[in-house]
Amino acid sequence: MNTPERRFLAEIHEQPAALEALLGHLDEFEAAGRACADRAPSVLRLVGHGSSDAAASYGVYAFGLLPGWTALRDSISLSVYYRADVDFTSSVVVGVSQSGRTPDVVSYVERARQRGAFTIAVTNDAGSELARAAELTLPLHAGEERAVAASKTLLNTFASLALLAGCAAGRGGEVAAAMHEVAERMRAALPGLEAAVAPLATTFAFVGRMYVVGRGIELGTAREIALKLTETCRIAAESVTSTDLSHGPIAAVDTMFPIWTIASRDECLPALVAAAELARKAGATLVASGSAADEVAGAEFRLPVPEAPLPVLSPLLSVVPGQLFAAALARAKGLDADRPAGLTKVTLAQ
Amino acid sequence: MNTPERRFLAEIHEQPAALEALLGHLDEFEAAGRACADRAPSVLRLVGHGSSDAAASYGVYAFGLLPGWTALRDSISLSVYYRADVDFTSSVVVGVSQSGRTPDVVSYVERARQRGAFTIAVTNDAGSELARAAELTLPLHAGEERAVAASKTLLNTFASLALLAGCAAGRGGEVAAAMHEVAERMRAALPGLEAAVAPLATTFAFVGRMYVVGRGIELGTAREIALKLTETCRIAAESVTSTDLSHGPIAAVDTMFPIWTIASRDECLPALVAAAELARKAGATLVASGSAADEVAGAEFRLPVPEAPLPVLSPLLSVVPGQLFAAALARAKGLDADRPAGLTKVTLAQ
Repeated sequence: MNTPERRFLAEIHEQPAALEALLGHLDEFEAAGRACADRAPSVLRLVGHGSSDAAASYGVYAFGLLPGWTALRDSISLSVYYRADVDFTSSVVVGVSQSGRTPDVVSYVERARQRGAFTIAVTNDAGSELARAAELTLPLHAGEERAVAASKTLLNTFASLALLAGCAAGRGGEVAAAMHEVAERMRAALPGLEAAVAPLATTFAFVGRMYVVGRGIELGTAREIALKLTETCRIAAESVTSTDLSHGPIAAVDTMFPIWTIASRDECLPALVAAAELARKAGATLVASGSAADEVAGAEFRLPVPEAPLPVLSPLLSVVPGQLFAAALARAKGLDADRPAGLTKVTLAQ
Repeated sequence: MNTPERRFLAEIHEQPAALEALLGHLDEFEAAGRACADRAPSVLRLVGHGSSDAAASYGVYAFGLLPGWTALRDSISLSVYYRADVDFTSSVVVGVSQSGRTPDVVSYVERARQRGAFTIAVTNDAGSELARAAELTLPLHAGEERAVAASKTLLNTFASLALLAGCAAGRGGEVAAAMHEVAERMRAALPGLEAAVAPLATTFAFVGRMYVVGRGIELGTAREIALKLTETCRIAAESVTSTDLSHGPIAAVDTMFPIWTIASRDECLPALVAAAELARKAGATLVASGSAADEVAGAEFRLPVPEAPLPVLSPLLSVVPGQLFAAALARAKGLDADRPAGLTKVTLAQ
């Protein structure tokens, strides 16, 4: 029996090394990116559950911003359960599953391939069912992940999608070089961030609900941090975009409802800052994270991260404070982040 | 000053009449559906916020199941803020806003039209900015809605998307006939449902968080009910698919965490029933709604609705118990569902 939560925290710290390991395989991404670009896809379809689906949210922006493609988190139900007669012939499909064993992701990829899509598996297990189902596999090269709550596999999934998008745009070398720099900046920032989340864990030990606000490229980050807090800390944490917040959820916010904001220095920053201001006026306790954390007025806690050399890579850094906070808060609540109640490393639910 | 929450409840009861008013304009939908089909779009892009975005989630299924098109809830940020170089030439765009004044939905539609998309506005105000921005407008014909919390405009947005999808598939008459039947069944069911939600409001008066579980065509319904509970009852209510639930959120569920399930008799029912069983084993109090509410084992409360004559129309009926529950719970909590704190009828936030 291991000491509770040591694995999750240890794996968070392994992320710079995991990212560098992935970057050793740039040639695989270059080949995959060329194969995608040769197809000139009308849409790129991403499918995954849990953390893999949060990564898919990020992928929508990586593919939209780098090759300028329309990417979507596709409905699995539509194809796998309803057997809808959707045209896959000009599609690239990216199936994402850290274990490679998520049943309906495998079924979706099988069906898409039968119907003419070019299919890619992004998985940490190159021998998995998902890898066998897809035409091409991009292994995550994250090493074994033992905590049920994903960290380094999640980071490498974000990175894999950005690398693939970069290679599809003919900018693989540039994106890879920027990612090497991201790994270094993350390594340098980790000890300070770990120290900085400690007081938050004490303050929020009795919190039952929370919103995590991100927009644009940080929407996937917000979804991942909310999921991490839900599964490791038993908080009802929900991700919302800055605009979502004012279209309903703001009505539920009060002084007992902390709001975690992810502020990156990009075109969505003014919307994020405006949403944070709205939440502050409603009395919420604000946490400001991200490279532009200083821009969020009235935040009680700030967790700034280094800027990424390419803006599209910001999420690789801004997810880290959320992971560290989840680990610290789980410990403060006496919960085991390595083995959350009701969860297993491989989810076989339909 | 009106008595609190009367408008919201009254407008819920006006829905069968609102739906029938919409059906008087089938010819507008037939023309729009033909115009869409003539474009043979590679993708149909839906954009909206709040309830309109919940309707867009339903639209993904209506267009996927009826004409077999790939529809997506598009990222507004990607085009409006990041100015991504995405190809719109073979796209149909449907901008959804009950007021027609949501700023970034208007901006998105303007940009998409400039870049070659065929653009349609779905709005309750045919003279709005959104209507002027789009090439073609489909008015909701819901009549004036005075409660801030949307009900009849939401229903008619769901219906408009299904009618447009039906007409695009050459099945407009069939879908319209089925919708007439839906209006009649809703009218017959409303009094019984209103009586049935009363005991739930008493039981859940102190609840702070809740999951609303739906899958496939009921995902949009789950999103709408969660939003309604958040804005009118100040509950942290989150929608999750049946599969999402086992990929994380189940770890947060306990006896104090009610789960609202939407069980419709279709291909996703087994997945929904399995997720409900998982929640029940974790100790959650289960509410079973939908046409197949009886299939959810161990539910403490059941709110069955009539079956829709066409399965794709189920959400038009299954949303109603959620609306009525929100109205009853707001009353039980002493909140004004007509004017929730921090919200206005027209949301101008970016």
